[in-house]
Amino acid sequence: MVLLIHHPISPHSRKVRLLMSEKKILFSLKEENPWNLSKDALKLNPAGELPIFVFDGKYIAGNNSICEFLEETFPDQPLLFGDALQKAEIRRITEWFDTKFYREVHRTIVTEKVFKRFITGTSPNSQVLKNGLSNLNFHMEYIDWLCESRNFLAGDNLSLADLAAAAQLSVIDYLGDVPWESYKSAKIWYSKIKSRPSFKDILKDNIKGILPSRNYNNLDF
Amino acid sequence: MVLLIHHPISPHSRKVRLLMSEKKILFSLKEENPWNLSKDALKLNPAGELPIFVFDGKYIAGNNSICEFLEETFPDQPLLFGDALQKAEIRRITEWFDTKFYREVHRTIVTEKVFKRFITGTSPNSQVLKNGLSNLNFHMEYIDWLCESRNFLAGDNLSLADLAAAAQLSVIDYLGDVPWESYKSAKIWYSKIKSRPSFKDILKDNIKGILPSRNYNNLDF
Repeated sequence: MVLLIHHPISPHSRKVRLLMSEKKILFSLKEENPWNLSKDALKLNPAGELPIFVFDGKYIAGNNSICEFLEETFPDQPLLFGDALQKAEIRRITEWFDTKFYREVHRTIVTEKVFKRFITGTSPNSQVLKNGLSNLNFHMEYIDWLCESRNFLAGDNLSLADLAAAAQLSVIDYLGDVPWESYKSAKIWYSKIKSRPSFKDILKDNIKGILPSRNYNNLDF
Repeated sequence: MVLLIHHPISPHSRKVRLLMSEKKILFSLKEENPWNLSKDALKLNPAGELPIFVFDGKYIAGNNSICEFLEETFPDQPLLFGDALQKAEIRRITEWFDTKFYREVHRTIVTEKVFKRFITGTSPNSQVLKNGLSNLNFHMEYIDWLCESRNFLAGDNLSLADLAAAAQLSVIDYLGDVPWESYKSAKIWYSKIKSRPSFKDILKDNIKGILPSRNYNNLDF
């Protein structure tokens, strides 16, 4: 029995859900408030972060740690493959989205638009929000550039890098802030990921109190 | 021939240097401005981040990507070992320091005390700096708590988790901001890491324009 303690606004939770779905691992979900974990969840992850992976009375925290564990223990449908250099390329791009995109885009946009509105009840700082949206363009340019010469972000095949990037983008897309029309190659890439069976549940996600953007779950966006 | 493009204020560079030294890999160093990478370095890593690992005309960017590559291609002196659960624990703590400590402590303290002073020529924001130092205490408490029941952060043996944590702390220690006296178990742990041969070069580091704190390179601190 596999349980993922998660929240739909957490991109790292989405990444692990996508990875488990690609690997056809059956799992159930339990939602936690990402800004205020319960005491029980904090015992499992003192870092206070989501997701937390629970199985057979054991648990693993840390999104990279969970994904590497899943790759090792469920080697079918590998998402981290190839020789050492190919794996390095997959991990480089995965790390880019897990950490750089997360810090420069997710934390600014989601803090301003969601955290402030629903948790602290304060107004967004428009300059900070503008910086987050400007950072997003830099990341979109990079995805676009990669997709001009590659089928998927780290090469010819779908890898963990695509799941990491799509997980991050899907949260921003829920909020309606991804400028798809300016990045044609990135859009084609995202539509490929979006139409995968593993993405179905992500497209049904519902962040309490916020309606998804008009094209969030539209495959022809 | 292995080259690491790095900067002494970059904790992720320090982590890779420690890992290579533990593995007895010979390497040379080339310094880059971490806030403004040269065009050549940006070609190797469009993320604009350090370190960058160069060997045999190939290169790898992304600190996690480099460390996993080194573990795979230099399996002697493993720093990521054991069964899948033990590796998950090593990776969980590594990720904690690589990302959470980096975001909550390094980026606030180093931005306020170094980046603003030397790059933008502006004054530190004392409230932001105070938050960074307060966050540091949370992380110190966690190291202290881990070290009360373990020889090293992820268990009985030295692992990548220790290198990741010590690399981050060593930068803050250079600036003189680690409150060692309040965290006895953490201090004992750090003194073990500090006295390893792999740490010798780190203790000789010189961040241009900033003198190291009085006890930075003192083994009996």
